[in-house]
Amino acid sequence: MIILGIDPGSNITGFGVINVELGETVLMDSGVIRASKVGEDHQLRLKQIYDSVCELIGIHHPDLCAIEMPIFGNNPQSMLKLGRAQATAMLAALNHQIPVTEYTPKEVKKAVTGNGNASKEQVRYMVETILSMEGGSSVTMDASDALAVALCHVHRGGSTQKAHSKNWAAFIKENPDRIK
Amino acid sequence: MIILGIDPGSNITGFGVINVELGETVLMDSGVIRASKVGEDHQLRLKQIYDSVCELIGIHHPDLCAIEMPIFGNNPQSMLKLGRAQATAMLAALNHQIPVTEYTPKEVKKAVTGNGNASKEQVRYMVETILSMEGGSSVTMDASDALAVALCHVHRGGSTQKAHSKNWAAFIKENPDRIK
Repeated sequence: MIILGIDPGSNITGFGVINVELGETVLMDSGVIRASKVGEDHQLRLKQIYDSVCELIGIHHPDLCAIEMPIFGNNPQSMLKLGRAQATAMLAALNHQIPVTEYTPKEVKKAVTGNGNASKEQVRYMVETILSMEGGSSVTMDASDALAVALCHVHRGGSTQKAHSKNWAAFIKENPDRIK
Repeated sequence: MIILGIDPGSNITGFGVINVELGETVLMDSGVIRASKVGEDHQLRLKQIYDSVCELIGIHHPDLCAIEMPIFGNNPQSMLKLGRAQATAMLAALNHQIPVTEYTPKEVKKAVTGNGNASKEQVRYMVETILSMEGGSSVTMDASDALAVALCHVHRGGSTQKAHSKNWAAFIKENPDRIK
C-alpha cells in the first residue's frame, strides 16, 4: 500500500510518500510545496497546492492519503488560512477517488514517538530512524511531519477501509438532486 | 457575460446566476447547496460543495465567479470551517479556468443597497427589485446573498480582466519545477 502523507499549511505544505509491503515500510518521496513562492495572492497559493498534490498523485498513485488536520488554534485569521489549505489538499485527493484519513498533530506525534507532546526534532529523528534515512537534516521539518502522518496511519493499523470516497459515491447515487 | 455568485458556508452555500447583456441584467438561476444534508462528515460536505459548484458551472457556463469572502471573525473554529468552504468553492471555479473575484460582505451590501451595514432583508429587497423578481420571500437569504455578490461585480464595473486564472497559467509556464 502506498500512502501519501500531507501536512497542509498556507505557506508551506509538506508531503511524504511511503510504501508498505509485507511489513516493510519504504520511503518513496518527500519534500515541500512552497505556496509562498507565488506571492501573497491566496488564489494562486491554493491552486498551487491543489495542482502540486494532483501532480504527486499522478507520479506515485497512492492508495490512501493521510492528512494532518489541526482543528484548534487561537488566531481566527490563521485558522481561516489553514482551513483553506486543508480543504485544498483534501479535495485534490478526493477528486482522484483517493480515500483520506485525518490525524491530529497529537495522534501523529504519539504514533511516531510514543509521546503526544514530542518536539518536531524528536519526530524527525524517529521518522529518519524508522525509514532508515541518512541522519542529520536530510529532510525538512515540514516533509518530516508529512512522513510522520503517513507512518501514523501505518502504526494505527489503518487500511483504506476508512475511505470516505466510497461514502460519497453512495451519497451521490442516493441523492441525484443535491442542488435545490 | 454570465456571472455565478457564491456565498460559501460550511452548512449552506448560496448560489445565484445572472446574465448581463447590453446593460440588461437577467436572473438565470438561484438556490442553495445544503452541505448539512450529508451529516457531520466534513469531507463529504466539502466534496458536496465542490461537486455541486462544478455541476452549476456545467449547466450555466459562467464567464466569471464572484465569491463573498469574509476574512474576519472571532471564533477560530468557525473560521477554520469557513476557510474550507471558501477554498472549495474557489477551487471548483479555478479548476474550470473560470476567473474568481472576491468581495467582502461590506462591499456587497454597499454595492447593492448603498449601505455597507444593510440588513439581509434590505439586501434581499434590493436583489428582488434589481432582478424584477416576484416580491415576498421568493428567494432564500443565502441565495439572495449569492445573487448580491454577482450584482456587486456588475455594479463595480467588473470584467473578467481581474482573472487570476491567467496569472496562474503564466506562473505554471514560468515555474515548471514547482515541487521541490
